Amino acid sequence: MSKELKIGLVGFGCVGEGLYRVLNQSKLVDASISRIVVKNKNKVRSIDRSHFSWDKSVILDDPSINVVVELINDSEEAYIIVKTALQRGKHVVTANKKLIAEHLPELQALAAKHQVSLLYEAAVAAAIPIIRNLEEYYNNDTLTSLQGIVNGTTNYILTRANEGVAYADALEKAQASGFAELNPTMDVDAFDSRFKLTILLKHAFGLDVKPTRISHTGIRNIKPEDATYAREKGYKVKLVAHAERVENEVVAYVAPQFVPAGHALYQVDEEFNAVVVEGAFADKQLFYGKGAGSYPTASAVLSDISALKFDYRYEFKKSHEANAIRFNDDFYLKIYLGSRFIELINEVPFLRVDEVFQSKAYSYQTGWVHLRELNKFQFNSIPDLSLIVLPESLVTGKQLEQLEVEGVAFSVEF
Amino acid sequence: MSKELKIGLVGFGCVGEGLYRVLNQSKLVDASISRIVVKNKNKVRSIDRSHFSWDKSVILDDPSINVVVELINDSEEAYIIVKTALQRGKHVVTANKKLIAEHLPELQALAAKHQVSLLYEAAVAAAIPIIRNLEEYYNNDTLTSLQGIVNGTTNYILTRANEGVAYADALEKAQASGFAELNPTMDVDAFDSRFKLTILLKHAFGLDVKPTRISHTGIRNIKPEDATYAREKGYKVKLVAHAERVENEVVAYVAPQFVPAGHALYQVDEEFNAVVVEGAFADKQLFYGKGAGSYPTASAVLSDISALKFDYRYEFKKSHEANAIRFNDDFYLKIYLGSRFIELINEVPFLRVDEVFQSKAYSYQTGWVHLRELNKFQFNSIPDLSLIVLPESLVTGKQLEQLEVEGVAFSVEF
Repeated sequence: MSKELKIGLVGFGCVGEGLYRVLNQSKLVDASISRIVVKNKNKVRSIDRSHFSWDKSVILDDPSINVVVELINDSEEAYIIVKTALQRGKHVVTANKKLIAEHLPELQALAAKHQVSLLYEAAVAAAIPIIRNLEEYYNNDTLTSLQGIVNGTTNYILTRANEGVAYADALEKAQASGFAELNPTMDVDAFDSRFKLTILLKHAFGLDVKPTRISHTGIRNIKPEDATYAREKGYKVKLVAHAERVENEVVAYVAPQFVPAGHALYQVDEEFNAVVVEGAFADKQLFYGKGAGSYPTASAVLSDISALKFDYRYEFKKSHEANAIRFNDDFYLKIYLGSRFIELINEVPFLRVDEVFQSKAYSYQTGWVHLRELNKFQFNSIPDLSLIVLPESLVTGKQLEQLEVEGVAFSVEF
Repeated sequence: MSKELKIGLVGFGCVGEGLYRVLNQSKLVDASISRIVVKNKNKVRSIDRSHFSWDKSVILDDPSINVVVELINDSEEAYIIVKTALQRGKHVVTANKKLIAEHLPELQALAAKHQVSLLYEAAVAAAIPIIRNLEEYYNNDTLTSLQGIVNGTTNYILTRANEGVAYADALEKAQASGFAELNPTMDVDAFDSRFKLTILLKHAFGLDVKPTRISHTGIRNIKPEDATYAREKGYKVKLVAHAERVENEVVAYVAPQFVPAGHALYQVDEEFNAVVVEGAFADKQLFYGKGAGSYPTASAVLSDISALKFDYRYEFKKSHEANAIRFNDDFYLKIYLGSRFIELINEVPFLRVDEVFQSKAYSYQTGWVHLRELNKFQFNSIPDLSLIVLPESLVTGKQLEQLEVEGVAFSVEF
């Protein structure tokens, strides 16, 4: 693209304002914001009122604007804006994970049809350039697994929980520090991580998977007793977006996981994000950085804008071999279930039980459960039952049969 | 580039053979090896003799070969091959850090003149895509610092040293495990890390610096007493390639460093590599992975080959603003010097001494020394003197004046 980049910016929240400032401060990107469209007419803004419009058609109808940067929360409205912008031959840069996770195939087809770019690096792990690296650098390697801490809110809360703080207090601390929203459902129930995993599955394995097909369990039910179990075993509890290739099948889920010391994700604390990618040739690699925040997110948006200068587009190279691999959930997971109520644990059909601990105050059980059986439970809505996945826990039915049976370790304290 | 990639491969050592196998296994890259040129006629090879030639002109004179992949150890011979290949309009992919660190400006000018690409991702930290990320993703951010563990051999040896193993034993272990060469000078005296830092300075800050201008101290002199000091303070000793921007100046050096727990490099052990990049907007990011080995290095080479498909070239965007910033060594470092001989410590001119410990068996001193003064000592060749840089240790003269003087902590055991 030889012509100048003239940006129509939709949204002036934390990230939008960050982008405005970063673009003004960085002399390295030759692009300018022509127009900013916001929803709220009465909100006091940090820059002059003359920059703003309240009607999206001011951007969409302006033929001189060739890039729409979409940074609003409302994913339905974002869908309309992005779709229209692409149809009118404008490049789009967005940070909206829900929009991309739910509508990528349609939006991508539109972008291809109108020969424009749709870029969204900031949608996953903000400043960490994970999508670009999957696209550009791992495009010729066969990936075997991908594990990510892709939500800063829950990682901050779990960092406190691992220190022994109760969930409610940790959430309150997160809200007070600006790391959690007043309504934290999207984060703590792992909807957000699931959207991000959906996008990663596309770029890492070429798979188009609807987010609703990916099992997701959040951190709402994690109890101090679970954190104590983790500490005793040398683990930390982390919310992990997990995808793994076994021959030509890929399994994926988001769930709290016991991460052992020495694991690449063990040291990823506070509000940080990280993704571990494992390739057949490149071996294991970790990308670590800020997964949220005004400037880190804006810097990812800016990288996308700057890539438009050389007509950059995602190639989705892995999708061309995707007919060979498929998404599947015919696997067994080794899990830990903790609860004050033994009955709740007993409702989950274990194929094999490895460890049982029962006491008046708290009980837990570890063992192997079929992923499909797990998906039948809505763990997010069973507050008295904590599900945590154990390390090295994914096997096929065949592999499970071959695992040595060690018998059940049973202990009772009453 | 629409035409097919026909590769002339020079060198069939560990990485060359890795590339051959990876190219055969990966169905994701559409490129083929036309010819392999090796030096040794009599060496037994794992593939049929008919693949090999012993004369580089077989590749250089063949107009159907449009990519030369150079993977030999001899950097003088590599220089001739790469130069000739570029002059004949062939793209070049190389993993040779010495070649690039010493000749980049000339080779890059040749590549530009003949409108071909010169790519060398594998030259720094092998499978970690650090050059590509600096080029593509941080090109619009102002970097403030870069710290890397970019040599797997020394990191493996230091991992043992941090456990209390003496240097000579640790080196022997490294050699037995294939992590160190019989003549380990390039690695343990930090020549290798210095080449890599030279290349990183170009892509991160746009600076053309001759490797010999960068101060380098290796790990040969690290004693168990130094490791004990580190453990007592909660540090690990790591060989760090360090570059930092202070206003419009960049300072860079390679030296052993005390890395505190909680620092992003603290957990980088064994033969792994990692680079921490800090940007004005993107904040701190860590890239972690295998820095050597047949397949990891070959996978980086393969990524470069695959990038040729879309005519990828480094843009050196930071160089365009480089007239504004310059390489400088007018800084003070806070260092630790350890020795059995107090006289050796006393030869180094400290501007300020913070801590002195003297005993019959071992002594050490910490304090501030001007970088230029340090550079006068060839620490690599003073076996009885260990230099280790302390954390958060770089200041300007002005900043040093403002640092509170706490007096000297002096202790003697005789």
